[in-house]
Amino acid sequence: MLSFGQIILASKSPRRQALLHQIGLDFAVIISGIDEDISIDLPPDQLAEHFAREKAHAVAVDYPDQLVIGADTIVVFDGRILGKPKDHEDSFNMLSTLSGNTHQVITGVALQLRDKNLDETFHEVTNVTFNTLSDSDINYYINTYKPFDKAGSYGIQDWFAVFVKHIDGCFYNVMGLPLANFWEHINKFG
Amino acid sequence: MLSFGQIILASKSPRRQALLHQIGLDFAVIISGIDEDISIDLPPDQLAEHFAREKAHAVAVDYPDQLVIGADTIVVFDGRILGKPKDHEDSFNMLSTLSGNTHQVITGVALQLRDKNLDETFHEVTNVTFNTLSDSDINYYINTYKPFDKAGSYGIQDWFAVFVKHIDGCFYNVMGLPLANFWEHINKFG
Repeated sequence: MLSFGQIILASKSPRRQALLHQIGLDFAVIISGIDEDISIDLPPDQLAEHFAREKAHAVAVDYPDQLVIGADTIVVFDGRILGKPKDHEDSFNMLSTLSGNTHQVITGVALQLRDKNLDETFHEVTNVTFNTLSDSDINYYINTYKPFDKAGSYGIQDWFAVFVKHIDGCFYNVMGLPLANFWEHINKFG
Repeated sequence: MLSFGQIILASKSPRRQALLHQIGLDFAVIISGIDEDISIDLPPDQLAEHFAREKAHAVAVDYPDQLVIGADTIVVFDGRILGKPKDHEDSFNMLSTLSGNTHQVITGVALQLRDKNLDETFHEVTNVTFNTLSDSDINYYINTYKPFDKAGSYGIQDWFAVFVKHIDGCFYNVMGLPLANFWEHINKFG
């Protein structure tokens, strides 16, 4: 349906790669090496866009004739950003905090095609409500799924799905890429 | 985490099988042969429960010592039930109707373990909002994905995801099994 010469995904996330495959895009993966420093003083939605832009830019400078996709997903509870957990204890604390509550998942997406002066960044917010988690649920999850590469310390597409009671917004945004919003933007370029 | 002797899924849906695998359940698949006659005069939520119960019952009578799961997913727009499309034209009409609008997906779930007198049925409703679909989007989708085995004529887990703007409720309910609600019920038995 789309006619880009080449697309590059500037993200090592296997979830994002799976989502792009799901919607039939061919792409290469080139990792940006950008470090996500969540201590930067920006509101969460701007921070997600900032990292997405940085990731896309770092790759786009070397591939100016290709469409580069950068993305960054941030989990926010009560105004506080939850990054990727450092260790078991950090993961336990995050999931205890999120238990029985509603949090926000924000994904920033940047699209850059330098030779055509295309440079667009947007974000999407989804509200996610968890059922109450027991300590043993949390420990079982951390030990079995080791969610240390995931913002907020859970993967909505794995066993943890059993605790996700309610979504308000785009589901795929929670997995790492807001497919419907992304599709609208990318079609403007196509 | 659960300790059933055996679990039987009374559904041929590959999506439901994938969801049970996702949450780590071992199960056998035995298809009930129940025909979904959507002309039965019941409100949609009761109809979904009715079919789920019928499917579970048809298998449970032969396997009284095993936990049998029946499920049925119904798509409702403006009070009208959309079943599985008969052909391309029917599919086209359904997707045109749903384009740019919000509809309800209702999954009924029945759990039966006859030797222990366990017999429970429940349902979950999710609101799903589509972006506007062009005729060429719809025709491309039908020709490529042949969604004739899907109520409402779309699969939220395939390319069609690009048109799903908003979910209000349980995402997995739209795929065919409300995992969080299911998990709560099944743990009462476990």
